Amino acid sequence: MTADFTPEPGQPDDAPGTEVAGGRLVRSQGVTAPAGFRAAGITAGIKANGNADLALVLNEGPELSAAGVFTANKVKAAPVLWSQQVLTTGRLRAVVLNSGGANACTGAPGFQDSHKTAEEVAAALSNWGTDTGAVEVAVCSTGLIGDRLPMDKLLPGVTEAVHELAGGLSGGTDAAYAIMTTDTVPKQAALHHSGKWNVGGMAKGAGMLAPALATMLCVITTDAVASAEQLDEALRAATRVSFDRLDVDGATSTNDTVLLLASGASNVAPSQEELTAAVTAVCDDLADQLMADAEGVTKRVRVTVRGAASEDEALIGARTVARDSLVKTAVFGSDPNWGRVLAAIGIAPIELDPDRITVSFNGSPVCIDGVGAPGAREVDLSGVDIDLDIDLRIGDAAVTIRTTDLSHGYVEENSAYSS
Amino acid sequence: MTADFTPEPGQPDDAPGTEVAGGRLVRSQGVTAPAGFRAAGITAGIKANGNADLALVLNEGPELSAAGVFTANKVKAAPVLWSQQVLTTGRLRAVVLNSGGANACTGAPGFQDSHKTAEEVAAALSNWGTDTGAVEVAVCSTGLIGDRLPMDKLLPGVTEAVHELAGGLSGGTDAAYAIMTTDTVPKQAALHHSGKWNVGGMAKGAGMLAPALATMLCVITTDAVASAEQLDEALRAATRVSFDRLDVDGATSTNDTVLLLASGASNVAPSQEELTAAVTAVCDDLADQLMADAEGVTKRVRVTVRGAASEDEALIGARTVARDSLVKTAVFGSDPNWGRVLAAIGIAPIELDPDRITVSFNGSPVCIDGVGAPGAREVDLSGVDIDLDIDLRIGDAAVTIRTTDLSHGYVEENSAYSS
Repeated sequence: MTADFTPEPGQPDDAPGTEVAGGRLVRSQGVTAPAGFRAAGITAGIKANGNADLALVLNEGPELSAAGVFTANKVKAAPVLWSQQVLTTGRLRAVVLNSGGANACTGAPGFQDSHKTAEEVAAALSNWGTDTGAVEVAVCSTGLIGDRLPMDKLLPGVTEAVHELAGGLSGGTDAAYAIMTTDTVPKQAALHHSGKWNVGGMAKGAGMLAPALATMLCVITTDAVASAEQLDEALRAATRVSFDRLDVDGATSTNDTVLLLASGASNVAPSQEELTAAVTAVCDDLADQLMADAEGVTKRVRVTVRGAASEDEALIGARTVARDSLVKTAVFGSDPNWGRVLAAIGIAPIELDPDRITVSFNGSPVCIDGVGAPGAREVDLSGVDIDLDIDLRIGDAAVTIRTTDLSHGYVEENSAYSS
Repeated sequence: MTADFTPEPGQPDDAPGTEVAGGRLVRSQGVTAPAGFRAAGITAGIKANGNADLALVLNEGPELSAAGVFTANKVKAAPVLWSQQVLTTGRLRAVVLNSGGANACTGAPGFQDSHKTAEEVAAALSNWGTDTGAVEVAVCSTGLIGDRLPMDKLLPGVTEAVHELAGGLSGGTDAAYAIMTTDTVPKQAALHHSGKWNVGGMAKGAGMLAPALATMLCVITTDAVASAEQLDEALRAATRVSFDRLDVDGATSTNDTVLLLASGASNVAPSQEELTAAVTAVCDDLADQLMADAEGVTKRVRVTVRGAASEDEALIGARTVARDSLVKTAVFGSDPNWGRVLAAIGIAPIELDPDRITVSFNGSPVCIDGVGAPGAREVDLSGVDIDLDIDLRIGDAAVTIRTTDLSHGYVEENSAYSS
């Protein structure tokens, strides 16, 4: 703990942290690390297994600016349609999130449920002394697609969550627990700038925009002073290089949502550059945590395509390899099967010359100029972390995608999910 | 057996067969069903396990016209580069195929190996009395990418294969066995037109153009009289609706090859329409056999997208769903998880309205107008064959893709393949 850092209203943070983006990054705090935020996580009874399933994040201000990024899927869940609509104002007082049901493909009645949930949050917060309108409340849901939510349990839960709102760390951590579905651990990260201003966040799931259907939900908070436009710019820049480059199985959820809320409570107005760097650092760390806890993961894999003609082409190439089932099963088997890597990059719609490609596993070259390197089949991939590096030697652009292996655990978990 | 059918030079075919494309389709014969073809399959010692690994198909004429379709992968194996080159003449005397090694990513020396193999076939056939040039010999290889072939075993094997050439059924069946890798059964099909003219074929693997990396090799023969141009038109039309619509895991091999050879020995010159229909029937049946024997398959799945704005859009939609890991694992678990189907079709870059989509499993509607149908979760998918039907209700186009589930067997087989 640095001498000049006393998080308000959270408890002190004793974790040593990592220096990044001009601040100190810790995983012991989340959305309540910045001043001006309260959170809660409770058991409303939406999940059959009795685990926590309802979270609430409250921005006490003085400012209420906000931005969001949503799934690119054309089939959007009701809460996504609701939240996109309310965010056109650039203001959010609160976010309510439930696990235990996605409220997707539920038609007009499902949209009414999201609307009603926001109204219930607004009424409960107003009763509690914080004047709030439904249009200031974003809604996020995650779970099985196609079923209506049990509103008879969810709505009383909203009132309970408002009563439970606490300013300390426990509120943020409770909220991080309540949004978990197949996650095995909650994911939080906070970046402290010498006690002057802070960014915090929580996330669940395994992807966003390109990634896994295990819905990704993420709420980021900051006590910086920033307009909705500044938040939007920071959030888009941050998600582009973090969550957008996490690709577990190429699927994209109907519910993926990333929200950024600013309270302005620090009275510090960082530059756009500083704000973007801080939000990016938190998103990047959360993306790392999502990869490490992806469904059935036994390997944490970073696929880098470098030497590409452009960043777009590097991204397409890395994503194509990261999604390839044959590469992913080989990695699960700790098999340095570089031939599958070449076959995978060969179908990417990008400029390449098969006779110039160089491939390395964990720094050991396995293929040079498109031909196997001596000892390539003996490279040891038995560890958990695998760096797969593909140099196209066409240009200067490079992109890294985080992914995982394709394991028995993935098949097991996803073949039994709705039962 | 029909009274007027006496296959020459193959043995009589007693299988009852299926009426299709104006002929009788049987699976007991392959490339030697049409007159004018001989084939062999032998053990050259390329495979470590001692199984048959070298096949030869000989066209005895009188005509030698031929056509081919090759992998769309930019990383092409040496035998593909060789065969594409020799096929520019529109003539083939023979095809030599080896399992036990793909000869891909082996550089200029690997190309020399393919060239040398063709020369050896030409020399051995010429010694045997059939004057042949290397430029009349196509080469196909399948197996692990990245290793040179054991030419000291392969070249003597070529001479042995020429000596083994037999006109009867056993030659075609031996050849079908010798090209197997992870296949558990050989795949053959023949279409007889009342003893007048015939099409036969053999295949191995699990895909083509979009499909699995388990290289797809296929040789089709016919005793019809047809020019190289007619064969090319027939083959492209046939593969477009058969192998191109088989998609096990979205991967595309470096070695995929489909060849069509005509001997003209029947003296029958069918119309283009008749030729295309016959070649399509054989390719379609082989595609069905490939699906049924795909790596780790426990379910045979047909994904149909109908009501699309165009055939292209229907194809993109069906392919997107067929490749979706979450749909495929749900099918493995016999789980009618239609929400994943909607989420998958929602990321396809095609025109759709989420509120108009109807989904059925095996004829039972599970989602109507984008909302779950009553009883949707109780649909029984415990059988082996699963029809997944998605109606977009935008236009009139429909396409069906054959695929499989994503099973433990798939992970097992592909995580241990190179070891």
